[in-house]
Amino acid sequence: MGNLPEAWILTIGNEIINGVITDTNRETISRELRSAGILVKGMSSVPDDLGFIGDALRIALDRARVVIVSGGLGPTEDDKTAEAVGAFLGVPLKSDPEQLARIEERFLQWSRPMSPTNAKQAFFPETAVPIPNDYGTAPGFLIEREGSIALFFPGVPRELVRMLRERGIPAIRERLGASDKVFINRTLRVYGLSESKLGEILGDVAHDEEDYHLAFLPRFPIIRLRIDVAAATPQEAEEKLAAKEAVLKERLPENIISRDGRSMEQVVLELLEARQMTLALAESITGGMIGEMLTRVAGSSKTFLGSVVSYSNDMKIDLLGVSPDTIRGLGAVSHQCAAEMAEGARRAAHADLAVAVTGIAGPDGGTPEKPVGTFFLGLATPDETLTRGFLLPGTREWVRTLAAMQALDLLRRFLLGMRIHGKPPEEG
Amino acid sequence: MGNLPEAWILTIGNEIINGVITDTNRETISRELRSAGILVKGMSSVPDDLGFIGDALRIALDRARVVIVSGGLGPTEDDKTAEAVGAFLGVPLKSDPEQLARIEERFLQWSRPMSPTNAKQAFFPETAVPIPNDYGTAPGFLIEREGSIALFFPGVPRELVRMLRERGIPAIRERLGASDKVFINRTLRVYGLSESKLGEILGDVAHDEEDYHLAFLPRFPIIRLRIDVAAATPQEAEEKLAAKEAVLKERLPENIISRDGRSMEQVVLELLEARQMTLALAESITGGMIGEMLTRVAGSSKTFLGSVVSYSNDMKIDLLGVSPDTIRGLGAVSHQCAAEMAEGARRAAHADLAVAVTGIAGPDGGTPEKPVGTFFLGLATPDETLTRGFLLPGTREWVRTLAAMQALDLLRRFLLGMRIHGKPPEEG
Repeated sequence: MGNLPEAWILTIGNEIINGVITDTNRETISRELRSAGILVKGMSSVPDDLGFIGDALRIALDRARVVIVSGGLGPTEDDKTAEAVGAFLGVPLKSDPEQLARIEERFLQWSRPMSPTNAKQAFFPETAVPIPNDYGTAPGFLIEREGSIALFFPGVPRELVRMLRERGIPAIRERLGASDKVFINRTLRVYGLSESKLGEILGDVAHDEEDYHLAFLPRFPIIRLRIDVAAATPQEAEEKLAAKEAVLKERLPENIISRDGRSMEQVVLELLEARQMTLALAESITGGMIGEMLTRVAGSSKTFLGSVVSYSNDMKIDLLGVSPDTIRGLGAVSHQCAAEMAEGARRAAHADLAVAVTGIAGPDGGTPEKPVGTFFLGLATPDETLTRGFLLPGTREWVRTLAAMQALDLLRRFLLGMRIHGKPPEEG
Repeated sequence: MGNLPEAWILTIGNEIINGVITDTNRETISRELRSAGILVKGMSSVPDDLGFIGDALRIALDRARVVIVSGGLGPTEDDKTAEAVGAFLGVPLKSDPEQLARIEERFLQWSRPMSPTNAKQAFFPETAVPIPNDYGTAPGFLIEREGSIALFFPGVPRELVRMLRERGIPAIRERLGASDKVFINRTLRVYGLSESKLGEILGDVAHDEEDYHLAFLPRFPIIRLRIDVAAATPQEAEEKLAAKEAVLKERLPENIISRDGRSMEQVVLELLEARQMTLALAESITGGMIGEMLTRVAGSSKTFLGSVVSYSNDMKIDLLGVSPDTIRGLGAVSHQCAAEMAEGARRAAHADLAVAVTGIAGPDGGTPEKPVGTFFLGLATPDETLTRGFLLPGTREWVRTLAAMQALDLLRRFLLGMRIHGKPPEEG
């Protein structure tokens, strides 16, 4: 997408420079700016130091029309951003009565005494315009210098992103007369395809063009596809986005799990609820991970009844009714054991559906016949029990995570009437 | 720690600038440098662009004696770092036969054909000194300019950190005649104290001094305490570190869970193994999280038998033998239910110990008597069953995470013979 104003991001904080925290504000700011049609061309970070902050601000303002700064607006002695900007501009700091009143009001709301140091947060360089903070004590501010502007926000991610969205972006648009186009985006979540496979499938639609951009954002084992479009009117933008999304849906009829940020576990729980079905689990290799994922979702107790985490063979036999002969003859990691575990969990929990997972996560425990990564899934339904076998790649952590996601994806596919992946029993 | 050479970190990549990935290389490099006695004073990031890279490199070399650069050394067209450095220095690129041979050899080892684009990775600015890569295809390189040096590494975190540690730091020491002191560090993990409480307890020992630095690194719900010391000899450094650690141990006799990076779950599993005891769980509020945490650890099956994730009341009754009267009269979130769940899990799994967790994670489901965050722990042992009540703060995610950690910490404290926290039944 061309012809956009360019921005620089500057984050301030000793803890960033010392490697004590992961600075995620930079990527958040970059994505928010992109949604508003502003391209980032560089980023820098400096400690809470007057000289370093002034130097970094000068470098940024010399290179971009918009500079977004985060951090150093707190009440402590370490927080030096306002003072540094005053020194940089050569103007004194001045307390802003309106912002001071807002800070005092906030402490009243919290019924907490306001520390004298918080009054410092209402001091801004004389020529700055305050940016009120509706979510915390530290207001931000805006300065202009030779046709460029710099906006300063607190480093608290939650406050920063809301202030930037609600007050920062409109202020930038107003001051720079930035693009009056409408920018919208949507993120699809994709499971079950590698990044390179996805690249093959979408190669010809993934190029950048005027007013359209498709980004791959892998977060193992999910890949998010973010579509950004711009157009003259909201309606045109919506139509354009729908057309681009339709192409992706046609290319990936089974692998897009959601288009609105819902996770795999949310999708599965909603499908269960829509079909009025309850679910139980028998987890071995995953140790409880699938239940943990499902119960992250508030309200999951409507459809999720529980799980038997049968790490030991005795628990498989005693609580799930797996036959000792199955374990002795075929092993706990087998199609037959997965089937009996699923049936046992369904019976024990009085559930409509049950899924069982058993496998070898490594690093030890593999054999030539059943190497690390060997994994079996069982699904017991009112009508039938089916099993599937897989060889999962990677470390113990990867194998376990993939096992949990394969189990949830099996449920999703079953509930949507799609093909079920993996090797059926007759193939081993 | 004073009088150390100062460094600048520059990371290069379009995906960093676009906010597509979280750039964790910056913090990794910062910590590695600190361990070597080199202080970072600033960081910047630019896209894969010749002009931006040259500009950022000049800014960094003007400000620090050591510049560490990562990214842009891959084989694709996007990777422009070597070319940008050549242009910056005003020297042509030249292929290095030794590095080319190493790349070819690596592809032979992998039995994969080498792409012609990989040959590009052996091209360096004429005046640069190559830095071999023992862990991937992209070699790094070093340049000098007016008394400062810049070292370039690939952006792959695993390769970067090893190359920096094994080749980069020694090269910096050699060239800058940096400190010949010995720098060592140790990280203690602390659970059960807030950062502000820890600040109070350690206020007078947390100050920075020559050759000693104590950092708080919170990663909810654990706080890591990192001790850095420097001394003239390895023995002196070890003695100094031991003395500093002894002070922390005295101040925090029960809250330091490990001194060598072991997680809470690893510590609990090792205590169980040392005492030759087996463990079972009955998880309600955590949905499987505790089992998942324990089974992350390879070899956990030696002591961890399994878990009954009884999200529904029926499963509590059928599989754990909780009395229906308990659930009807006192509720599933009660001391009595926690006790019966623990006893039921111990019995069902034939375990030596069992821990049960039940509570209200929210956001819904709270009542005036039992608000969101109400949480009960049960521990069944061969000798007795005890329960504890808590009111946990925060979001659903926090409540669940704290519930899991409290359960593991209860086990740790029981196995170490420490006091058990929380309200006993008589207090409600």
